[in-house]
Amino acid sequence: MWQLYQFPLCPFSRKVRLLLGEKGVGYDLVRESPWLRRDEFIDMNPAGQTPVMTDPERGLKPLMDSTAICEYLEETVEKAAMLNGSAAYRAETRRLVVWFDTHFFHDITAPLLHERMIKRIFTKETPDSKALREAMKAAVRHLDYTDYLLDHSNWMAGSTMSMADLAAAAQISVADYLGGIDWKNHEQTAKWYRGLKSRPSFRPLLSERMEGIAPPKHYDDVDF
Amino acid sequence: MWQLYQFPLCPFSRKVRLLLGEKGVGYDLVRESPWLRRDEFIDMNPAGQTPVMTDPERGLKPLMDSTAICEYLEETVEKAAMLNGSAAYRAETRRLVVWFDTHFFHDITAPLLHERMIKRIFTKETPDSKALREAMKAAVRHLDYTDYLLDHSNWMAGSTMSMADLAAAAQISVADYLGGIDWKNHEQTAKWYRGLKSRPSFRPLLSERMEGIAPPKHYDDVDF
Repeated sequence: MWQLYQFPLCPFSRKVRLLLGEKGVGYDLVRESPWLRRDEFIDMNPAGQTPVMTDPERGLKPLMDSTAICEYLEETVEKAAMLNGSAAYRAETRRLVVWFDTHFFHDITAPLLHERMIKRIFTKETPDSKALREAMKAAVRHLDYTDYLLDHSNWMAGSTMSMADLAAAAQISVADYLGGIDWKNHEQTAKWYRGLKSRPSFRPLLSERMEGIAPPKHYDDVDF
Repeated sequence: MWQLYQFPLCPFSRKVRLLLGEKGVGYDLVRESPWLRRDEFIDMNPAGQTPVMTDPERGLKPLMDSTAICEYLEETVEKAAMLNGSAAYRAETRRLVVWFDTHFFHDITAPLLHERMIKRIFTKETPDSKALREAMKAAVRHLDYTDYLLDHSNWMAGSTMSMADLAAAAQISVADYLGGIDWKNHEQTAKWYRGLKSRPSFRPLLSERMEGIAPPKHYDDVDF
């Protein structure tokens, strides 16, 4: 059985979990708080980041980095392929995965995690309200962009569900948990997100809680 | 013919150019200075980053993001495959590509570009010597890690040359151009880098210059 090292609000672990869920691959969760920089974890992954995926029974080297893990799963598990279509379609899918993993994360998810999670549970500092405002303004810009993408097609990369949707949903779900998303005026993205939230792959994520941090009421409501 | 939007010291464009060179795919260079945020370029790539690859004759949508471009080339050009071996080997290759694209870039290449290129040619500020010292200290740590990897095998990811080597060489070559690499005590990595520098795919990069910024003497010397 796969073991996935993660914490409930890690967006990159969520991306991998959504893919595992869609593919029907079983796994156990191993709680890892990367901000503690546990020696054994750093020895396993010098980047010090979740997710890491291991399968002790199979004696594989640990898989690290969410993109490398997702490509591995795409190559080894045929069911529910999320990198589909022509080479150009796959390039657009991968561009969007990087967009959400890098730009959305940097502008929105990372500052929200820092201000509302790390400061609450680890450094015990007061959140910086300017940084929070900036993140929430960036979220409006980013959701304008996803609205634009979804104006042109049913899914982020085009006519079929892909890794781009899972990467987007993973980041958005963490930002939403941390109160960073104002759904007003983003009906296209909200409609797409309602569809994703109602998928069986999404349910385990929505029911999980990070200790000491409560999500807003609408967070796990499929008809928010 | 492909057109590659880039500037001479863009490490991500260098990664793509090394792959194009290995595969023997022809391309024209289009100079783009992403820090100027030219409207037409932002319209093409909302991330505002090089490289972007287009082929006006074929009427393809522009390809964006160096990883999406490299995966596209791997899928469409058989020659000189750089994602090889078992799924686990490919996962290790992709993990290392992310390592160099993200961690090496963040710790070393990005601050060097900011302090020694952007400040010289664009903002006309004085470089921050503390930031430069930090980047050069980080380079020692990172080259200790590549020495360790190359202690165990001939190439970064294992027994065969891969995208991990191209990603590493792209970052290292820009850091070296900007005087950020002290080769002393890094014989393993230096030996590997000498091998890469002498490949035909590397020659066009080494002969290029960024206006107003001269590299150190050893930069284009294959036997440095």
